[in-house]
Amino acid sequence: MEDRDYMLAALELAREAAADGEVPVGCVITRGGEIVGRGRNRREKGKNALCHAELEAIHDACTRLGGWRLWECTLYVTLEPCPMCAGAIINARIPRVVYGARDAKAGSCGSVCSLFDMAYNHHPAVEQGLLEDECAGLLKEFFRNLRLTLPSRKKWRKPDGA
Amino acid sequence: MEDRDYMLAALELAREAAADGEVPVGCVITRGGEIVGRGRNRREKGKNALCHAELEAIHDACTRLGGWRLWECTLYVTLEPCPMCAGAIINARIPRVVYGARDAKAGSCGSVCSLFDMAYNHHPAVEQGLLEDECAGLLKEFFRNLRLTLPSRKKWRKPDGA
Repeated sequence: MEDRDYMLAALELAREAAADGEVPVGCVITRGGEIVGRGRNRREKGKNALCHAELEAIHDACTRLGGWRLWECTLYVTLEPCPMCAGAIINARIPRVVYGARDAKAGSCGSVCSLFDMAYNHHPAVEQGLLEDECAGLLKEFFRNLRLTLPSRKKWRKPDGA
Repeated sequence: MEDRDYMLAALELAREAAADGEVPVGCVITRGGEIVGRGRNRREKGKNALCHAELEAIHDACTRLGGWRLWECTLYVTLEPCPMCAGAIINARIPRVVYGARDAKAGSCGSVCSLFDMAYNHHPAVEQGLLEDECAGLLKEFFRNLRLTLPSRKKWRKPDGA
């Protein structure tokens, strides 16, 4: 198994999220060639701001490995981590992160900021762009379908007498 | 109930953490004068990098209020939030954060960086220093006791023949 295979596994989880009506983001964590954590976005159905793919995968990996330090692991995620997830990666001492698509609005591994380069006590290595087109394409398709299912917006009219 | 009372409630949770052998950090979330979320650090016993006081309190509040947007809430925490918890506060759209002691090593609301001032889509107001002496004192006492219970370090000696 190579990086590409693990990102394909993360993409599969992202597709599961989309099928469930959630923004398609998926994540896997590996150690020694084995997947030890899986997660996907479920914020809307879970009604919980913490239900991001990376947090679910880190929770899964900590549970399986029986400790909070994931220092021999690599995390693969289809979308650039937000500050919460990048902070969780620092807290879990994950040494390497590979992500697909950039996130201009919330990405904290190069876009809005680079948390891993700041003066915290852990500095994960980060690689961007693996299967980027597939990861970004899945998000674009999801939002295009969402717009098609939303009620069409009425044209704005000046209120009577205004 | 005033800010001070809510911070006292957070301090009580921090003391619970200390009694359980965890670094003493406690957190409460309020809405309309009522406490709707409680959390305290349990990283060691939980064997999980995500088990910070703020994440537990946000999870609790999302569950009780039935949604991921905590936009009418205030979060009180005894120690400055780390990047994971500051990111979670942004994700949950919490508008106001009050914290006691600064955290020079991981604090992300003024110490290592100021995540709430960066170009994310939400900018919580933050107030520092409420009951700071009590919050910092609890941490100092915990680490002093921890040092007393650790085996004493032997003096370093040059290896024979070196």
